[in-house]
Amino acid sequence: MPDILPPGSTIGVLGGGQLGRMIALAAAPLGLKTHIFAHHADEPACQVASAMTTGEWTDEAALARFADAVDVVTYEFENVPAATAAFLAARKPVRPGPLALEKTQDRLFEKDFLNGLGIPTAPYAAVENAGALARQVGQIGRPSILKTRRFGYDGKGQFLLREGSDVGAAFRALGGAPCILEGFVPFEREVSVIGARGVDGTFAAFDVCENEHENHILSVTRAPARMAPETAAQAFEICHKILDALDYVGVIAVEMFLVAETGPDGVRREKVVVNEIAPRVHNSGHWTIEGAETSQFEQHVRAICGWPLGSAKIRGQVEMRNLIGDEADRWREIAAEPGAALHLYGKAEARPGRKMGHVTRVILPAAR
Amino acid sequence: MPDILPPGSTIGVLGGGQLGRMIALAAAPLGLKTHIFAHHADEPACQVASAMTTGEWTDEAALARFADAVDVVTYEFENVPAATAAFLAARKPVRPGPLALEKTQDRLFEKDFLNGLGIPTAPYAAVENAGALARQVGQIGRPSILKTRRFGYDGKGQFLLREGSDVGAAFRALGGAPCILEGFVPFEREVSVIGARGVDGTFAAFDVCENEHENHILSVTRAPARMAPETAAQAFEICHKILDALDYVGVIAVEMFLVAETGPDGVRREKVVVNEIAPRVHNSGHWTIEGAETSQFEQHVRAICGWPLGSAKIRGQVEMRNLIGDEADRWREIAAEPGAALHLYGKAEARPGRKMGHVTRVILPAAR
Repeated sequence: MPDILPPGSTIGVLGGGQLGRMIALAAAPLGLKTHIFAHHADEPACQVASAMTTGEWTDEAALARFADAVDVVTYEFENVPAATAAFLAARKPVRPGPLALEKTQDRLFEKDFLNGLGIPTAPYAAVENAGALARQVGQIGRPSILKTRRFGYDGKGQFLLREGSDVGAAFRALGGAPCILEGFVPFEREVSVIGARGVDGTFAAFDVCENEHENHILSVTRAPARMAPETAAQAFEICHKILDALDYVGVIAVEMFLVAETGPDGVRREKVVVNEIAPRVHNSGHWTIEGAETSQFEQHVRAICGWPLGSAKIRGQVEMRNLIGDEADRWREIAAEPGAALHLYGKAEARPGRKMGHVTRVILPAAR
Repeated sequence: MPDILPPGSTIGVLGGGQLGRMIALAAAPLGLKTHIFAHHADEPACQVASAMTTGEWTDEAALARFADAVDVVTYEFENVPAATAAFLAARKPVRPGPLALEKTQDRLFEKDFLNGLGIPTAPYAAVENAGALARQVGQIGRPSILKTRRFGYDGKGQFLLREGSDVGAAFRALGGAPCILEGFVPFEREVSVIGARGVDGTFAAFDVCENEHENHILSVTRAPARMAPETAAQAFEICHKILDALDYVGVIAVEMFLVAETGPDGVRREKVVVNEIAPRVHNSGHWTIEGAETSQFEQHVRAICGWPLGSAKIRGQVEMRNLIGDEADRWREIAAEPGAALHLYGKAEARPGRKMGHVTRVILPAAR
C-alpha cells in the first residue's frame, strides 16, 4: 500500500516556519520523522526536525536530495513555485497536490474555481490596467479592495478603495502587478473552517471558529463560532466540496465572512461567503492543539501519511491569542497562569508584526 | 537571575532514549531548545532535538563541548557516572543535582537515606559475601530478594529467594557484585508518585497512579490510584520530604507499595512503603501527557529552567499501556481508535521486551 506510510517514514516539509515546526512536533509522537526544506538552517522548524536541507526553491540539486530523503512532501506555505512542486511531484507524492497550489496561489483562479463550484464569494473582476480598474470600480462599487493576484498575506499587496480614493494611485501602489478587484462584503464576523481529507476521501472538520484581526494580522480565534447550526452546516459543506473538487489530501483552511441580515419580516438570515483558501494548516487552527481531540497538525500528518483521520471533536470553549512582536516578552506571566498553554516558535528576533508565539485557553464544559 | 532560563535557552539532556525525546518535545513549545548527549546519533531523542553531541560518559572533550553549548544539564537516566555529573556540574547547573544521583544509584545508599528521613521501606541488609548472605536471609526471612546495589532496571540484577533457593547460587548469579537483600513486602498494589520541585522550592505532584508489571516491565498505569485519600496524602508527604531533603530541582518518581490489612476490628488500614526512587521523568508518568493539565515532561522542563511549575491537576480517568516489542505493530488499529493517543518512540528495531511506545486513553469526567 504505497499510499500508507508506516511509523519510521519521513515527511518532507517545504518551509521552515512555525507551521512546519508544529507539523514536526505532531509527527514525532506518531513515530514519523520530519525533514525540513528551508532557506536558512536557523528557521523555527529546523530546531525540532530529524533532518533539513537548505536551499532556494529553484535549487534543483537541493530539491533532488530532499526528495530522495523523504517519503512524502507537504508544505507549510502556499507560495511554493509551481515548478518546484512539479519537480518534487515527479519524484515523491506531494500532498496536498499541485492542483491545490495552482488554484490558491492566484486570487483570480481561486475565485473562478469557487464560483465554478457554486460557492459564494465577494463580487470580483480581474484588473489588467489602470483604465480597466476605473471602469470596474464603477461596476463593483466602493468600498472595494484592490489586491495583487499573487503573493499577498497579512494584508500585504492590498489597497482599500473608498469614496474619493485615487484609482490610478492604487494601481501604481501595487506596482502594476496583475490584480483583482473585490467588492466589500458587509460581514458580521470573520470565521474559518479547518477541514481535512484523507487519502481515501474521508472528510473531517473542526468546529467553525471566529477570527479577529488587528492591522490585517490574526489576533484572536475563538471556537466554536457564534452562528446558527445550519450556517455552520453550510460552512462545512462548502469546505467539503472544495476538498473533493481538488482531490485534496491534508488539512485546508477556508476563511469565510459570516453575513447576517434581519429581514423586514424580523427574521435573522445568516449565510457564509468564502474570502480565501489556504491549502495548509493555518493560524486560525492553532486552538486545536489543546482544544480538539486531534490537533490540526496531527490531522494533517495523518492525512498525508494515509492514516485514519483523528477525531475533530472540540473539548470546550477555546480562545487562541497570537503573541505578536514584543507580546512574547510576557512569557513568564503566561507560564504562571493556570490553564494557559504557551507556544513559542523559537524565533530569535521579535520584530513588530512578527508572529512569535500564541497562547491557548480552554474552558472545559461542566458536563459532556 | 541566573536560575531562570528564558525562551531561546538550551537544555542539555544526558541520554538519547524516549524520555529525552519526550523532554525535547515538551521543551519546544516553550521556545526552549534541546541538545542531546547520546552514545549514538540515531537514538530516539536525537530525531527531535536542536543539536546533539555523541560520546561516551568518560569522553571529557565531548562533555566539555556539550557543556559549552547548553545552559542547564539534566538527564533521562539515573546511572550517569558520578564523575560525569561532577565534570558537568563544574561548568553548568546540573538539575537535579549530583546528590540525587548519589543517593539513587545505589540501592543501599537509597534505603539508608529513606530510613534516615523516617520513611518506611522493606527491611534490608547490605550483603558483602555469600556467607553473610546466608545469615542475613535467616534474619530477613523468605521470600526475599537479592539485588545488585547498582545498575539494576526492569528486574535485571535481581534474584528471588524462596524457600529452598540456594543462597550461594543466588550470590554467584549476580556475579558477586555488591548486593542488598530486601525483605518481601506483601503489597496489595504498586503505586507511584510523580512529583516536582522548582528552583524556588515549590512542590507539585500528580495524582498517585497504580502500576501493573509483566515480566518485571511496566505494563499498565492507571490514575488516579484506588486508595484512601489519607493514604494518598501520606504518599505525597513522602515525595515532598524526599525532594526537600535532596534540595531537588526537577521531576522525581517515587515507587511505592500499597500495603493494606484488615484488622481484627474489621477496619481496613492502608499504608505506603517506598520501593525505589528514580531521579527523573518516569514511565509511570507518561499518562500525564494527555491526562494532566501539565505533562511530567513539561513540568520537568519548567522546574529545571526556573519557570513556575504548571498545574498537575488530573483531567479524568486515565490508562496508559506500554507497547512492548511487536505490540507496536498494532499502530494502525490504535490510530483508528477514537480517543486513543498513540506515542511511538522512533526505534527502528522492535526487540522483545523493548519499550517501543505507549498508548493513553483518558475518560473525561461527566462533570467537573
